[in-house]
Amino acid sequence: LPEMDPAASASPSFHACVQGSSFQPLNPEDVRAYLYKAADFITDYYTSVESMPVLPDVKPGYLRDELRASPPEHSAPFDVTMKELRTSVVPGMTHWASPSFFAFFPSTNSAAAIAGELIASAMNTVGFTWQAAPAATEMEVLVLDWLAQLLRLPTSFMNCTSVGRGTGGGVILGTTSEAMLVTLVAARDAALRRIASNGMSYITRLTVYATDQTHSTFFKACRLAGFDPANLRSIPTGPETDYGLDPAKLLEVMQLDFDAGLVPTYICATVGTTSSNAVDPVSAVAAVAAMFNARVHVDAAYAGSACICPEFRHHIDGVERVDSISMSPHKWLLTCLDCTCLWVRDTNHLTDALETNPEYLKNDATESGEVIDLKDMQVGVGRRFRGLKLWMVMRTYGTAQLQRHIRSDVAMAKAFEDLVRADGRFEIVVPRNFALVCFRIRARGAMTEEATDEVNRVLINRLNMSGKVYLAHTLVGNRFVLRFAVGSSLQEDRHVRSAWELIKKTTAEIIDGEEIVQ
Amino acid sequence: LPEMDPAASASPSFHACVQGSSFQPLNPEDVRAYLYKAADFITDYYTSVESMPVLPDVKPGYLRDELRASPPEHSAPFDVTMKELRTSVVPGMTHWASPSFFAFFPSTNSAAAIAGELIASAMNTVGFTWQAAPAATEMEVLVLDWLAQLLRLPTSFMNCTSVGRGTGGGVILGTTSEAMLVTLVAARDAALRRIASNGMSYITRLTVYATDQTHSTFFKACRLAGFDPANLRSIPTGPETDYGLDPAKLLEVMQLDFDAGLVPTYICATVGTTSSNAVDPVSAVAAVAAMFNARVHVDAAYAGSACICPEFRHHIDGVERVDSISMSPHKWLLTCLDCTCLWVRDTNHLTDALETNPEYLKNDATESGEVIDLKDMQVGVGRRFRGLKLWMVMRTYGTAQLQRHIRSDVAMAKAFEDLVRADGRFEIVVPRNFALVCFRIRARGAMTEEATDEVNRVLINRLNMSGKVYLAHTLVGNRFVLRFAVGSSLQEDRHVRSAWELIKKTTAEIIDGEEIVQ
Repeated sequence: LPEMDPAASASPSFHACVQGSSFQPLNPEDVRAYLYKAADFITDYYTSVESMPVLPDVKPGYLRDELRASPPEHSAPFDVTMKELRTSVVPGMTHWASPSFFAFFPSTNSAAAIAGELIASAMNTVGFTWQAAPAATEMEVLVLDWLAQLLRLPTSFMNCTSVGRGTGGGVILGTTSEAMLVTLVAARDAALRRIASNGMSYITRLTVYATDQTHSTFFKACRLAGFDPANLRSIPTGPETDYGLDPAKLLEVMQLDFDAGLVPTYICATVGTTSSNAVDPVSAVAAVAAMFNARVHVDAAYAGSACICPEFRHHIDGVERVDSISMSPHKWLLTCLDCTCLWVRDTNHLTDALETNPEYLKNDATESGEVIDLKDMQVGVGRRFRGLKLWMVMRTYGTAQLQRHIRSDVAMAKAFEDLVRADGRFEIVVPRNFALVCFRIRARGAMTEEATDEVNRVLINRLNMSGKVYLAHTLVGNRFVLRFAVGSSLQEDRHVRSAWELIKKTTAEIIDGEEIVQ
Repeated sequence: LPEMDPAASASPSFHACVQGSSFQPLNPEDVRAYLYKAADFITDYYTSVESMPVLPDVKPGYLRDELRASPPEHSAPFDVTMKELRTSVVPGMTHWASPSFFAFFPSTNSAAAIAGELIASAMNTVGFTWQAAPAATEMEVLVLDWLAQLLRLPTSFMNCTSVGRGTGGGVILGTTSEAMLVTLVAARDAALRRIASNGMSYITRLTVYATDQTHSTFFKACRLAGFDPANLRSIPTGPETDYGLDPAKLLEVMQLDFDAGLVPTYICATVGTTSSNAVDPVSAVAAVAAMFNARVHVDAAYAGSACICPEFRHHIDGVERVDSISMSPHKWLLTCLDCTCLWVRDTNHLTDALETNPEYLKNDATESGEVIDLKDMQVGVGRRFRGLKLWMVMRTYGTAQLQRHIRSDVAMAKAFEDLVRADGRFEIVVPRNFALVCFRIRARGAMTEEATDEVNRVLINRLNMSGKVYLAHTLVGNRFVLRFAVGSSLQEDRHVRSAWELIKKTTAEIIDGEEIVQ
């Protein structure tokens, strides 16, 4: 060994390097004080949100007029920030937490989830590799196995079973779109390898399948992944299948493509479509897919949560035959945004397409092959500790309580549906599968379809502009339909009942007032 | 109008639809109690994290052995959940919040950011359209304009300037990878349109450019977007440019591609590479790109935060000539994960590629054209209220304090660098640009490069296994190098000094102990 110069290792004086040195952004007592204030704000918010307009009456650009156009140069007491939050931000919110929110799907939430999210954001780990966050990685894997058990997913989707480690596994992502994208890319690359292409030359031969009810984000994900826009098949559905995918039609379309020399690559089956909660038949879809060696993904973003109850589990029967399934506890399992769970039958499907191995992330644990680096199952590198909140929800409330929550929402939706059915002015447009009711004022007498659509359009606009409720609409079979989605976490039966009273009253005003002329 | 049957509108009795009815997941007082407990936990954590091993000594699978293998059937008091967090989760964490964390880049954080994230997760809005969350959308747009001002981005990147609405704008995403992906897809589709292709037939003609120092996630994003693996150009760099992109080499490679009939489409320039904080010359890169009509994205994920200080702003000089720039306040601007800001010169570039318009999201505000629907600038549909925490940080601390924070970190890094330089056993491998110091034990006498690499490998392993510090490594010019990244938010100069003492002591043990034999 070369001789070292002892003098060389003597330190120069260490400069006081913090000018002023008074700025401690994580001073523990400041953190406690700010978080207590935030907790108090939230408690007040949940207590009072019922009395706020669900949909705010603000004009585009309103916030810029209320707040400064430029960032402040100097610091302000946290109370000033909180005051501006109360006076300028809250009045411009669409209150998803309102018990009178019935639009889209509810973003359900719980005290345990919010606490979990809070702790995760304070620890602020970036769990790209196991080593960078062992507990976060293991928590995510564990809680996905827990949820897989509740959903009675086959053990092939689990990371760890009673008989040891399998090939399957899961990852928590931000959105269903990301789950679709990563599984699409994996399927794309596998299909290209199968046709002996080292590059993208044959990408225009790959085809993907869904229905005209599938969420638009699926077709967007296909375009992101480079599938040819001409090769995205949107299979028409109709009332004869309650807007679910008809496997016979799927087979016909896939066979035509196959005969034309194309390569059927991927099918997205939805359990609980956004528009009307239609359910594609998972098992039958998988059977058709198998004939062409195509992969099947099940998107159960909303309705997957219901499948923790035995009485709803049949909606994903056949899942043991598909390649992947995703569902979002941030929709209906009391877990705040964002939390989309993706399970795959073979994690190599994902990692073959998504693995990276830069020098600065190399470590012994990864090289041992004994651990999972979750960055290799997602789009990006950075990742939040999302498993913590989902674990806190499952650990704190337990399965029985979570099932009760689902059943309560479904019971409220059923009660609403019964009210609608009993009122001859309205019709239920598609059978209710979960906690979404699709209904409309029906055409009576000589009313044209156009006039009926217009009556319903007037109804929803009046309802939403009242600030007392918020509903979304959709088209089902080209008819304008109101969507009544039960389940906002502060919701009780009295809110559903009030909404129904308001719907009846507003309908009467519209119809009796003869404001709509045929 | 048809006659309505009055009897039909009479309500049946409304069933009490909540069985048991005792489960209120958002009971306001429960929320307050859970959040106070979480806040107390966090305060304790920040107070004690200094004494915990930075890198935990746990084996793969440890958590499954500590916790239950199956989800609990029944609910538990929240204190049970918190106890398991303390006893099983915390000991398995890699403590990114530790003041002795010097690995990767720090995930900086602040009381204001955590409070903002907490409130956002409680409001739990899903701001896909303006109407679905007006205040969240406007806050995001406003705070991006604020930050654009701090960075002195050209007004062409702003949504709103003193002279009115421009074509530019920004969006907050989860990761830099997503910023790369959406701008890549936009560039891909624009290039394909330019060569008159309606589909993906010509995708194998498109080429993209970066350097051998560019983050691996860029090349992954290219593959996700369907670019041909054979068309991803990784331009070699060397010490003559401090590992920054050489524009002459870029021109040469692009010209070769162009002459071969390929279509140069996109260049990713990095300001502050992950490996060694190298800076690609933005202006010169843009000049080369313009010759080929290729788009340029600037990835300033880490170093972008420093550019709020005038003395660092020159690193993004020329940004007015590029198409997009992204930086992540979750890295160095005291904002907890996740928060990546992307600005584009023309929002139509993104929306042309990413817009969707399903019926259930249609609304008057969107159709007026006066608002921005942020879903059309990202991969997915769902999105968290990320603007709130960034606004809370800027509103509470103010520009001067944020600049002080950057300068303090840089000063600590400079002090560390001075210590290393003054010790003849070590060398600084590349010039320090920001708060990352790349150093190593130098080869002395007859030590081979391999032996020197091995000494450094032994050094970092001992340091990290001590639990007293955590550093990452990299390869620079094929030499094994230690990365010392200053800036974890609880860090003070004493932690940097202690780390240096430990490095010196460990080095002495390794070298004097002659454990490494050449």
